[in-house]
Amino acid sequence: MIIVLKSGATEEQISHIVDKAQKLGLKANISRGVEKTVIGLIGPEDVLRVTPLEVFPGVEQVIPVLAPYKLVSREFQPKNTVIKIKDGIEIGGTKIAMIAGPCAVENYEGLRRIAKFVKAAGCNILRGGAFKPRTSPYDFQGLGEEGLKYLKEVGQEFDMATVTEVMDSRDIDLVSKYVDVLQIGARNMQNFSLLKGVGATYKPVILKRGISATVKEWLMSAEYILANGNFNVMLCERGIRTFETMTRNTLDINAVPLVKQLSHLPILVDPSHATGRWGLINSVSKAAVAAGCDGLLVEVHDNPEEALSDGPQSLVPKNFENLIKDLKRIADAVDRTI
Amino acid sequence: MIIVLKSGATEEQISHIVDKAQKLGLKANISRGVEKTVIGLIGPEDVLRVTPLEVFPGVEQVIPVLAPYKLVSREFQPKNTVIKIKDGIEIGGTKIAMIAGPCAVENYEGLRRIAKFVKAAGCNILRGGAFKPRTSPYDFQGLGEEGLKYLKEVGQEFDMATVTEVMDSRDIDLVSKYVDVLQIGARNMQNFSLLKGVGATYKPVILKRGISATVKEWLMSAEYILANGNFNVMLCERGIRTFETMTRNTLDINAVPLVKQLSHLPILVDPSHATGRWGLINSVSKAAVAAGCDGLLVEVHDNPEEALSDGPQSLVPKNFENLIKDLKRIADAVDRTI
Amino acid sequence: MIIVLKSGATEEQISHIVDKAQKLGLKANISRGVEKTVIGLIGPEDVLRVTPLEVFPGVEQVIPVLAPYKLVSREFQPKNTVIKIKDGIEIGGTKIAMIAGPCAVENYEGLRRIAKFVKAAGCNILRGGAFKPRTSPYDFQGLGEEGLKYLKEVGQEFDMATVTEVMDSRDIDLVSKYVDVLQIGARNMQNFSLLKGVGATYKPVILKRGISATVKEWLMSAEYILANGNFNVMLCERGIRTFETMTRNTLDINAVPLVKQLSHLPILVDPSHATGRWGLINSVSKAAVAAGCDGLLVEVHDNPEEALSDGPQSLVPKNFENLIKDLKRIADAVDRTI
Amino acid sequence: MIIVLKSGATEEQISHIVDKAQKLGLKANISRGVEKTVIGLIGPEDVLRVTPLEVFPGVEQVIPVLAPYKLVSREFQPKNTVIKIKDGIEIGGTKIAMIAGPCAVENYEGLRRIAKFVKAAGCNILRGGAFKPRTSPYDFQGLGEEGLKYLKEVGQEFDMATVTEVMDSRDIDLVSKYVDVLQIGARNMQNFSLLKGVGATYKPVILKRGISATVKEWLMSAEYILANGNFNVMLCERGIRTFETMTRNTLDINAVPLVKQLSHLPILVDPSHATGRWGLINSVSKAAVAAGCDGLLVEVHDNPEEALSDGPQSLVPKNFENLIKDLKRIADAVDRTI
Repeated sequence: MIIVLKSGATEEQISHIVDKAQKLGLKANISRGVEKTVIGLIGPEDVLRVTPLEVFPGVEQVIPVLAPYKLVSREFQPKNTVIKIKDGIEIGGTKIAMIAGPCAVENYEGLRRIAKFVKAAGCNILRGGAFKPRTSPYDFQGLGEEGLKYLKEVGQEFDMATVTEVMDSRDIDLVSKYVDVLQIGARNMQNFSLLKGVGATYKPVILKRGISATVKEWLMSAEYILANGNFNVMLCERGIRTFETMTRNTLDINAVPLVKQLSHLPILVDPSHATGRWGLINSVSKAAVAAGCDGLLVEVHDNPEEALSDGPQSLVPKNFENLIKDLKRIADAVDRTI
Repeated sequence: MIIVLKSGATEEQISHIVDKAQKLGLKANISRGVEKTVIGLIGPEDVLRVTPLEVFPGVEQVIPVLAPYKLVSREFQPKNTVIKIKDGIEIGGTKIAMIAGPCAVENYEGLRRIAKFVKAAGCNILRGGAFKPRTSPYDFQGLGEEGLKYLKEVGQEFDMATVTEVMDSRDIDLVSKYVDVLQIGARNMQNFSLLKGVGATYKPVILKRGISATVKEWLMSAEYILANGNFNVMLCERGIRTFETMTRNTLDINAVPLVKQLSHLPILVDPSHATGRWGLINSVSKAAVAAGCDGLLVEVHDNPEEALSDGPQSLVPKNFENLIKDLKRIADAVDRTI
Repeated sequence: MIIVLKSGATEEQISHIVDKAQKLGLKANISRGVEKTVIGLIGPEDVLRVTPLEVFPGVEQVIPVLAPYKLVSREFQPKNTVIKIKDGIEIGGTKIAMIAGPCAVENYEGLRRIAKFVKAAGCNILRGGAFKPRTSPYDFQGLGEEGLKYLKEVGQEFDMATVTEVMDSRDIDLVSKYVDVLQIGARNMQNFSLLKGVGATYKPVILKRGISATVKEWLMSAEYILANGNFNVMLCERGIRTFETMTRNTLDINAVPLVKQLSHLPILVDPSHATGRWGLINSVSKAAVAAGCDGLLVEVHDNPEEALSDGPQSLVPKNFENLIKDLKRIADAVDRTI
Repeated sequence: MIIVLKSGATEEQISHIVDKAQKLGLKANISRGVEKTVIGLIGPEDVLRVTPLEVFPGVEQVIPVLAPYKLVSREFQPKNTVIKIKDGIEIGGTKIAMIAGPCAVENYEGLRRIAKFVKAAGCNILRGGAFKPRTSPYDFQGLGEEGLKYLKEVGQEFDMATVTEVMDSRDIDLVSKYVDVLQIGARNMQNFSLLKGVGATYKPVILKRGISATVKEWLMSAEYILANGNFNVMLCERGIRTFETMTRNTLDINAVPLVKQLSHLPILVDPSHATGRWGLINSVSKAAVAAGCDGLLVEVHDNPEEALSDGPQSLVPKNFENLIKDLKRIADAVDRTI
């Protein structure tokens, strides 16, 4: 922790800070500059996190030196985390995971038809929403438990792992009974009750980045899950909110290699939400794989005209097949497989 | 709903859309322009919300004409909503509400000391967090039910109404037992389970704007609460996330009169979170009152050096007294009182 | 300048940095923490600005301690700058300046009519664009020198000071001949040739904040003008670009008191561009004055239906009169006049 | 153009708008909905651009149907533009252009050394700044004409095309004498005088996207250059400003395929500015090529410790060689070459 003092800070103010630091078991190192004095505090920064040094008289700025996350950091675990989803299905290794399916589970037949197709196209993880977070209370809110049952049944029929979103800490047990992977949506990235709740399970978790979360905040949310005992966390970049309006969100492609540097956790990309336009998905999916992501979440629908949500960003089967074909070539160019 | 077609849209594509519209009970009005054709759909737009017209062949853009919110809109209720918090305490009328207190309830004595002071300064609503949403799992998470008890006890002693945040739908009943007003924090603005939950109570609710929520999304979140039966909703602008880093957030002052135009609900402003710097709070609070807000949420602490959270943005008693004094003059200049 | 080293930084890397610092005439102060080592460099930071210490082996982060601006800072000049625009017209003192007029000078008669009205309403500085920065090459680009002549003539007739935008360093001399105050538009805030150019004149300059400029960058742009010899600079907050789309821009009201703390220069607010909606201008103008601004730039047009630009954000005369009346009350509540 | 009226719009207000439209030579098509009336105006939208219909009584919203750009649009020219830079060097075809060199031309020997290296690595376009836009007036501002001479000399020696930034319309002729390609920097994307100036030359122009420019505004700036007669324009995505602070900017990878859909102009990517961290450049460069860009601008320096600007985002020769090697594989996977 570094404390920059105001130009006219007095000796008394300096002593006041140094005393406080010493009481907390830290060593204070004072550098008196030409214009400003700087105090470096040496020792565990955690004890300082709850001490608002900014309000001490004479303080201009407080700068933490250590990253606030620990368990998720690459310093804590240098080796990439590889998460076992199900027998024969892992995420975080050489093989890039393709997670595909409809935005929402709408009915049994539709889900089965899409699952059959994406499986045939070479994808072995099925996604589909049973509880849907919708901006409007008047929009389709998902089938709830019925949707979970369909997911489980269809997953078993085609030997696919399943992913669905959990929106409320009260639903964690219910959802966990039916699916293999729990997804935390962007709107709930800082729903700390929910994070603690999934942290108390052993289920693999996909943690989507909040629409305006910094990479640091996102890693801190993952830290909540790990700190509660569950290390099976995958991060998912799904586009951030910017001033640009022609796309639904802005895919932060920088975040892919950045997260790889900072953390050992796998990183996925959701090109559907990141663009909101199916016509851009092929290009940005190739970009995501080239940048080093460990998997993709893609919305697929065989009849987008009737989709109950996210039709405009869903790929029809033909385009999904082309996507897989194109991605195999990119994966190969970065020494990975799909 | 207006549908703009691509330049080369065919007659067959136009018929396809018109047929769909008619099946949904809508009338289609076709304008053939020099370069583009536009179809206006007349009838209840709600049936269209779940139909992804963007994916119909030939469609370039779909533009809704009606606002997606209804119950919160000024068209639905032209008159300002005035919410009764407790005997003698209302929000939304001529008197501007001052809601003050520590960020977190830290202990009984501290809360009591601050409450006594803010009451004496003329403020009759006490705020304090018992469940704290913290970015880091290692930070102080609040006293939980113990904090709620302190709030209730102190509120009764000084005859003040009380406000606290509820973070999890499982806690709504518990929190409701102890306090007068439930607060939904910025991070939970789109926690739809929580919104439905507080919608099912009769408690007054303060709904904070999400850190990157548009005004429209914010009103839609309020709509969730009203649509579930609770009309006692106050909106609270608390700063949005922008590229500026010298302040914790950017207070969107435009939103104050804008919300007043669009909605009948009261609008509050939280200058503490909106700036993150106590030195700016006096000025932006005056701005908020001048712009027409119905109340302010201000963090006050009598010893910020020991505050367990948000010390840097808390006012010390002396500054809070000055604030009240300055605000009275501004309130008077806009024909209101404090 | 503070240099945070990576966890595994070697003694050799530390020496390399210390050597470099000493060659530049700085003293290095090394703090060896539990996890990380930090080097504080003492001496003039300017010599370091061109030395990219981030790329030295072992360096994780470089943190400047001193603000990069000097002449604009309140530390350089504690007293508020008051700028004399013309005999009897000053900006930066107790009296809040009202600068009003049409967005663009469209013709002589229209300008004269509006000027006559705003003068009668109590405003003695006239604004009007002769060179217009327009997003589209097909939009009205302004009358050029003809517009400048009208401004001068009308300004003289009504004894008003005049303000107009200069967009190109080649036009500085021309524009200076005709008007009292040069305006640098938001799009040119980092047109450094233009900044140097106006810096070489003695003319008062209004420097608008760039649409996505941080306060620090904005002050640095002002520093360009002062560093070239012209201290007659006024800053103008005119709204920043955010994700919100219901308003043209987001007025950063926090910036008003923040700039007052950091700098001695006067700060103006442009509520017209900051909202883009005439219906919000009255409220946010009151907010700006309450927050402590030194003046307002307001677009006024007596026939917005025929305005060649910015009609939707122009006030008609009746509304401008009401604005002045309302602002007088707010100004009085903060011990100022209009 | 579509005009949505307010709920209570009167027949008189409707007639007023229809009359205005007819005077402008447009046909008005009125759709009376259940809640709102919508007027579609048919005919050339350009005549409406200067008519602020938003201010007409009864109007709620005005929605343009046609894109405001013409010459840059793919509808105007369906085929990709291929720009000839020099004999044997084209941009926009199958071969992806590598434009590399130091951020600033610092001295003759350094430039020569870097040029020799990047040429040997397979790159035939040399970049280097002679006029540098710097946030601080106290930073290195570039060598000016001397730098241009070095660029020309070194370019000739190694048979490379040359690119440099022009910051002021007064310098266009001078810069054009020395280099093959003019670059408009992000800060000048809406310096309309400069755009008109380079539009009047025949020189190829690289137009960088403004730090907070929408894709639409960027295309409009390109339209300025084409409308002034110069069709040799390349767009360059260089990262946009968002709330994320761990990277200098956020590379908008979505913009690459989006611009390809909307426009026939080549699109380049600058991974150096888009990340600000050399450790991310390899990954995001691969992403950019995978997403379909036509070229990359990469900052290379053989001694970043002594670089006068942008050291932290410059690649050292070894890393640049690796980049080229990696990119060849990605280019091959999307049927292109480097």
